[in-house]
Amino acid sequence: MTMSNKIVLGDNQYGKAEVRVVKVTRDTDRHQIEDLNVTSQLRGDFEAAHLKGDNAHVVATDTQKNTIYAFARAGVGSPEAFLLRLSEHFTSGFDWVTGGRWEAESYTWDRIQSHGSEHDHSFVRNGQDVRTAVVVRDGNTTHVISGLKDLTVLKTTQSGFVGYPRDKYTTLPETTDRILATDVSARWRYSTGLDHTATDFNKSYEDIKALLLEGFTENYSHALQQTLFDMGKKVLEAHGEVDEIKFSMPNKHHFLVDLSPFGLDNPNEVFFAADRPYGLIEATVQRENSGTAPAAWNGIAGFC
Amino acid sequence: MTMSNKIVLGDNQYGKAEVRVVKVTRDTDRHQIEDLNVTSQLRGDFEAAHLKGDNAHVVATDTQKNTIYAFARAGVGSPEAFLLRLSEHFTSGFDWVTGGRWEAESYTWDRIQSHGSEHDHSFVRNGQDVRTAVVVRDGNTTHVISGLKDLTVLKTTQSGFVGYPRDKYTTLPETTDRILATDVSARWRYSTGLDHTATDFNKSYEDIKALLLEGFTENYSHALQQTLFDMGKKVLEAHGEVDEIKFSMPNKHHFLVDLSPFGLDNPNEVFFAADRPYGLIEATVQRENSGTAPAAWNGIAGFC
Amino acid sequence: MTMSNKIVLGDNQYGKAEVRVVKVTRDTDRHQIEDLNVTSQLRGDFEAAHLKGDNAHVVATDTQKNTIYAFARAGVGSPEAFLLRLSEHFTSGFDWVTGGRWEAESYTWDRIQSHGSEHDHSFVRNGQDVRTAVVVRDGNTTHVISGLKDLTVLKTTQSGFVGYPRDKYTTLPETTDRILATDVSARWRYSTGLDHTATDFNKSYEDIKALLLEGFTENYSHALQQTLFDMGKKVLEAHGEVDEIKFSMPNKHHFLVDLSPFGLDNPNEVFFAADRPYGLIEATVQRENSGTAPAAWNGIAGFC
Amino acid sequence: MTMSNKIVLGDNQYGKAEVRVVKVTRDTDRHQIEDLNVTSQLRGDFEAAHLKGDNAHVVATDTQKNTIYAFARAGVGSPEAFLLRLSEHFTSGFDWVTGGRWEAESYTWDRIQSHGSEHDHSFVRNGQDVRTAVVVRDGNTTHVISGLKDLTVLKTTQSGFVGYPRDKYTTLPETTDRILATDVSARWRYSTGLDHTATDFNKSYEDIKALLLEGFTENYSHALQQTLFDMGKKVLEAHGEVDEIKFSMPNKHHFLVDLSPFGLDNPNEVFFAADRPYGLIEATVQRENSGTAPAAWNGIAGFC
Repeated sequence: MTMSNKIVLGDNQYGKAEVRVVKVTRDTDRHQIEDLNVTSQLRGDFEAAHLKGDNAHVVATDTQKNTIYAFARAGVGSPEAFLLRLSEHFTSGFDWVTGGRWEAESYTWDRIQSHGSEHDHSFVRNGQDVRTAVVVRDGNTTHVISGLKDLTVLKTTQSGFVGYPRDKYTTLPETTDRILATDVSARWRYSTGLDHTATDFNKSYEDIKALLLEGFTENYSHALQQTLFDMGKKVLEAHGEVDEIKFSMPNKHHFLVDLSPFGLDNPNEVFFAADRPYGLIEATVQRENSGTAPAAWNGIAGFC
Repeated sequence: MTMSNKIVLGDNQYGKAEVRVVKVTRDTDRHQIEDLNVTSQLRGDFEAAHLKGDNAHVVATDTQKNTIYAFARAGVGSPEAFLLRLSEHFTSGFDWVTGGRWEAESYTWDRIQSHGSEHDHSFVRNGQDVRTAVVVRDGNTTHVISGLKDLTVLKTTQSGFVGYPRDKYTTLPETTDRILATDVSARWRYSTGLDHTATDFNKSYEDIKALLLEGFTENYSHALQQTLFDMGKKVLEAHGEVDEIKFSMPNKHHFLVDLSPFGLDNPNEVFFAADRPYGLIEATVQRENSGTAPAAWNGIAGFC
Repeated sequence: MTMSNKIVLGDNQYGKAEVRVVKVTRDTDRHQIEDLNVTSQLRGDFEAAHLKGDNAHVVATDTQKNTIYAFARAGVGSPEAFLLRLSEHFTSGFDWVTGGRWEAESYTWDRIQSHGSEHDHSFVRNGQDVRTAVVVRDGNTTHVISGLKDLTVLKTTQSGFVGYPRDKYTTLPETTDRILATDVSARWRYSTGLDHTATDFNKSYEDIKALLLEGFTENYSHALQQTLFDMGKKVLEAHGEVDEIKFSMPNKHHFLVDLSPFGLDNPNEVFFAADRPYGLIEATVQRENSGTAPAAWNGIAGFC
Repeated sequence: MTMSNKIVLGDNQYGKAEVRVVKVTRDTDRHQIEDLNVTSQLRGDFEAAHLKGDNAHVVATDTQKNTIYAFARAGVGSPEAFLLRLSEHFTSGFDWVTGGRWEAESYTWDRIQSHGSEHDHSFVRNGQDVRTAVVVRDGNTTHVISGLKDLTVLKTTQSGFVGYPRDKYTTLPETTDRILATDVSARWRYSTGLDHTATDFNKSYEDIKALLLEGFTENYSHALQQTLFDMGKKVLEAHGEVDEIKFSMPNKHHFLVDLSPFGLDNPNEVFFAADRPYGLIEATVQRENSGTAPAAWNGIAGFC
């Protein structure tokens, strides 16, 4: 191939990141709260801005921020539904915006227990996990990916690691009883063509999170890979609306401390929780023949 | 005063910081887990190390780490009890160690719900707050300070801010209905002379945390200062074993978004959650005549 | 399409992440230091581990860590050269390892100035930026991507933003003189087929970093998009060995503070540096006809 | 002592934290930039706000923020001088404000090298360290404490650790050649009674930082304690205006990797840089008889 010396613009996207929006619904004394961190990014014909500094197509990132706040006035509903509304607005409102990527983190607030009951308007943030959502609009196709991160789980037994190959750099002893701990990051992609208006994304989220936790507990783990696959399989078996689920799970090592120099035994009771390095296990569990939709995953931070 | 030109060693302490110890108790199939981040620092006669590089008095920080792991073999019990055992060991074991400071963070793990019941050996980390503990040994006096941090709470109404002085730099409008949100950091000091072996620090912790949450909900808040004082007063009234409680609470501003340019009203429904700057309210609530024990607080990060 | 109900393993990779390796070269009194954070991930046939818990193919992540340390004994040279050696080792050593992804951050240490000269063995960490490198092995193809992140730059003038479209959500006023500030994250991909052994990756890095800084200074910026393209074009024009460069650059807003309520003017002198939200501008600058190599970028955190 | 059951307000302070102010001086084409993160906290009679929700004395934290921006219009000069002006304003402007605490971090920007010279209005952030300043006003006394943090230094040789006591928990082997690495956090207190208007705080800062770096390089280190004392002594000997200097320095362990299982030696060349736990060495170096001014240090995060 003869190399052209012409230098051109390739893939690009831009927008406003991390718009923190808190929506309070107060139509009764029992207030509701929705708390999101929203990023909006547009794709389309933005060549003139890059090559000539002509901003005629550049919907200001400030305008994108304003739109997010204005749309929140009518309620959020679910992060996915909110992002879908934004994606529809931006792609239908500007001819040259042919797609984009909208992303949200959302944070759960529990009602404070006060004098024996849940308070009407006082909340405490639940830090168990962060919920995530991504909507990607690519021409006429709309992809929805939901997920969670920072869900830290641990088993004190029923995990081992044996039977791995040994080469000249292998020193790890086998073990049939260890702590298994990880921070679950998972994202699941809803089927292309799903009727989004008929989907209860909040219910799917709650169900899938519960299945992931349950899947973590169930079997003896011969490898974190196996546990990951078990967790994903449970989700796909129960949720026909999901085509694939990706996981990125660190193996958070808990090393048994050698107490023998101090005249003590240590029958799997005292552990050192290490920071770095850590194992990192990443995989996709998917429905055979359902396709993989790489365009949906483009721009995801890391594996998922 | 005539200034001496002699340069000398002043206050000092040293040790091992952030020893991550996880203790599993597995005497039945229903495992228990205790998860701590422990720091040990010794005070005493360490002048020769600083001035001459003579380490004869320097109990190695590695030795301090080993001691923490060895002591965990017999169980933790409560972070406070564990730190008290360490403080007793180091001050009685080495003549020149006349005091020190031991600190711990601890992390709560909940049992995973699986198939309708709590699992025996699978846990999910509860991120609602981090529990803290400090033991300071100063000669024959032992101070115990317990606390929590990162407990994020929010009220959607029953908060206002009016009646403050106005000068040439004041532009803030008054409001009688706003969101009040803060991350509670609190530390409470147990009475000097308390019988530590007869104190159930875990129970005190749970009770005090519940009182802090309840105190946050109860009254209309004219200022975060008032809410802080209410929270502290509830604790001291119910817990005679506590002499003072200190708070450091950011006022996490939630600004009402002006939607009028878009033809929308905003009756306290859509807010922008700001990062910086933030208000910062810090105060001590104490029992009159009980004393303040500045030596106990020396070395605390910031106000508390 | 008839949907299969069979649930299968899709894309996957695993390894050891964030192996912190510091290599000191001390063959003369003037020591050299190389400081890296290395991640190794293997791709290939790992189905049995996921589906059956059979680890016969699972080169332990601990073994990968050991290999990194052992290989460092012979020196690092450049992060890219080091990762290439690792990739060659793992793909040639195990039949079922058909590819993988190796990544490094590296940190620069400057010699301390002491008594008028650079010290032989004392260093201070230079925090101006973090250097990054990725090697992706995909069958017989090897991709090398170098980059940097956290390079924070700012212009106090010669930047404006005008001529953007206005819709009902647009309130931003135009400006012809503003602060332009960003954290540069950039990654550039070396041409497929480049002779890696003949490439001086350290020199390319230094040159490209200098060009990026220079490119930021040169022209009036009508939009951050334009400045980004200028920076990328300079690199591609000067470095024939590079086929494309991707940028992810936040627009770190510096808002002019309205001092008029206090009887003061503010002729672009006093600014509030905001945290969130921020603009986020991401684009690729590439050589026409050189191809885009999506496999090389797969797994990159976010846009780049 | 008879315990009173009355619950009262103890020490308290409040204000606005982390006000990010960037000041550009553009009276010539060669612009100057000052970049600060300022916290203002007032002390005095604020009892009514805490006990009754009466805000008549509560100078709004928003007003404190506005004051910071308004004062920046006339220039910063040095962080210390800026904080002194704020402290004078708040304590003289409100009868019930009897003291307070003002704190700043400041960030250094270097001019970008472009086409062989330093650019007039384009800057790159220098991440070598963060400069800190604290002004405490306590009645008629004003304390000034300057400092730095995050200055990471490392020696590849001329450090050892031997001669420490051995007890039943000691397993650490002695070494006469190791890596010594630390993040220097230091704060120095200017003499009480110093004429602040005649003090060039910027020059003192530059000189003291250079002395700290030089002090780190000079002698064989028998313990980090000794190196710390050497560094402090150099500062006090050269700077009569400083009465004491406090250090908090982690011992950032670099463990020699055992390569013998792989048939390799390791003559102090390949190290694992550990995260946690770490040693933590904290001490004060002071001028004999100069006093210690505990009120100045009250509220400092941790030891210093």
